Amino acid sequence: MRFGRIATPEGMCFCVVEGAEGAEVCREIAGTPFTEPELTGREWKLADVRLLAPMLPSKIVAIGRNYADHVKEVFQKSAEHLPPTLFLKPPTAVVGPGAAIKIPEFATKVEFEGELALVIGQACKNVKAENWKDVVLGFTIINDVSSRDLQFADGQWARAKGIDTFAPLGPWIETDLDSIDTTNLPIKAHLTHEGVTETKQDSNSNQMIMNIGEIIEFITASFTLLPGDVICTGSPAGTAAMFPGDFIEIEIPGVGKLGNPVERA
Amino acid sequence: MRFGRIATPEGMCFCVVEGAEGAEVCREIAGTPFTEPELTGREWKLADVRLLAPMLPSKIVAIGRNYADHVKEVFQKSAEHLPPTLFLKPPTAVVGPGAAIKIPEFATKVEFEGELALVIGQACKNVKAENWKDVVLGFTIINDVSSRDLQFADGQWARAKGIDTFAPLGPWIETDLDSIDTTNLPIKAHLTHEGVTETKQDSNSNQMIMNIGEIIEFITASFTLLPGDVICTGSPAGTAAMFPGDFIEIEIPGVGKLGNPVERA
Repeated sequence: MRFGRIATPEGMCFCVVEGAEGAEVCREIAGTPFTEPELTGREWKLADVRLLAPMLPSKIVAIGRNYADHVKEVFQKSAEHLPPTLFLKPPTAVVGPGAAIKIPEFATKVEFEGELALVIGQACKNVKAENWKDVVLGFTIINDVSSRDLQFADGQWARAKGIDTFAPLGPWIETDLDSIDTTNLPIKAHLTHEGVTETKQDSNSNQMIMNIGEIIEFITASFTLLPGDVICTGSPAGTAAMFPGDFIEIEIPGVGKLGNPVERA
Repeated sequence: MRFGRIATPEGMCFCVVEGAEGAEVCREIAGTPFTEPELTGREWKLADVRLLAPMLPSKIVAIGRNYADHVKEVFQKSAEHLPPTLFLKPPTAVVGPGAAIKIPEFATKVEFEGELALVIGQACKNVKAENWKDVVLGFTIINDVSSRDLQFADGQWARAKGIDTFAPLGPWIETDLDSIDTTNLPIKAHLTHEGVTETKQDSNSNQMIMNIGEIIEFITASFTLLPGDVICTGSPAGTAAMFPGDFIEIEIPGVGKLGNPVERA
């Protein structure tokens, strides 16, 4: 099942998104995606509403340096010498599909990072790797937008990755955890610059250093996760700079596409 | 005015805390501290209720390396070469006065960091330094508990400073922004270990590199702040290791005292 959050002429709501690509219908649910969905009977064509970020998380926990190829391109070191690390993105960085990524003047080298994201379904702590499906509501996509200049100048990544609009999230939450193979999942990023679209990231989750279960076990050894919290599983190689006027689309087969224009803040 | 949040036999509520030290009374308010307080008429002696963390923030934004003396003791470098940096602590790390700091086995060098904290009063972005009082609801105290081993092993500080219980907050929010001089404010930490109490931190906010206004301007150039968000202004020198069985009390005159026992998780 796919849960989305939409803005309709009558307000915002959670919904179930059904139907083939290009002909999706959004059926409003009464509550949240955390319980068995109760349809209200109201529905809209997806084309007639606006998709919002499918969740407003209480926290976004991300794994950095979780793809060996990306570690090498960004840090010029092998992953053996720079193991995965945790960082946080603030909830205020979240925007939905189609919303602009706004680059402030002081961020001079802003790159996209297409990533598989997990949405947590229940409060949890000390989860064993093999039990990760018990606590994950579903999959979505995050663009972990990162200003490389600030990332390295600050040392800590919170500012470089936490600027308002630097966490595009969506398009929806796919809750069928067996519908995709998280150990062999293509992850692509298509950048449109001056009218020309190039596929910049073209990797696969089989390049992950920590797998989904290991990530959940590692994080929940330290942090309690709450319903709606978002986990970013790391970016593969191919990240590149974006400029005002560009359009960046992240694509993960079986999850969807997350596209956002880039603007000057 | 002092706003607290308390657990009473009838439930949890925000309250106004009045009266001299040791004889405080908590008067329940109908709403939150973000609007003019409306007293319900119910009240308790502070001694008869339990103080909770005065706020559950949507995010905790902290300035690291904001005291030259602390930069030197932790990083063995001068502040000129390591300027202040931003990091985030997750909201799930917050505990209230008197609640235990729980150290997991994998955190082998856990230190306290007593800090002046700001509680944000209204949504804001791009605030100029001189206008910081327009957006700050009041002052409180945070203990930015940090596991030095994980801090340096991970490189990123999110895990070392974000473990559940690693953000004791309180005892309340002092909203009279002119009642203390934030440029000349003593900050102390008293550690009780094996029955002996020693004052480990004994510094002053006059050692800050970025002052309160500069911190607010720096953060809000990147992040929208929301009501209740907590800003940690940095720790002075004197941080030291804590062990299960210890008791750590942070003291800032005019704000209060924040004391927490230390336990094994």
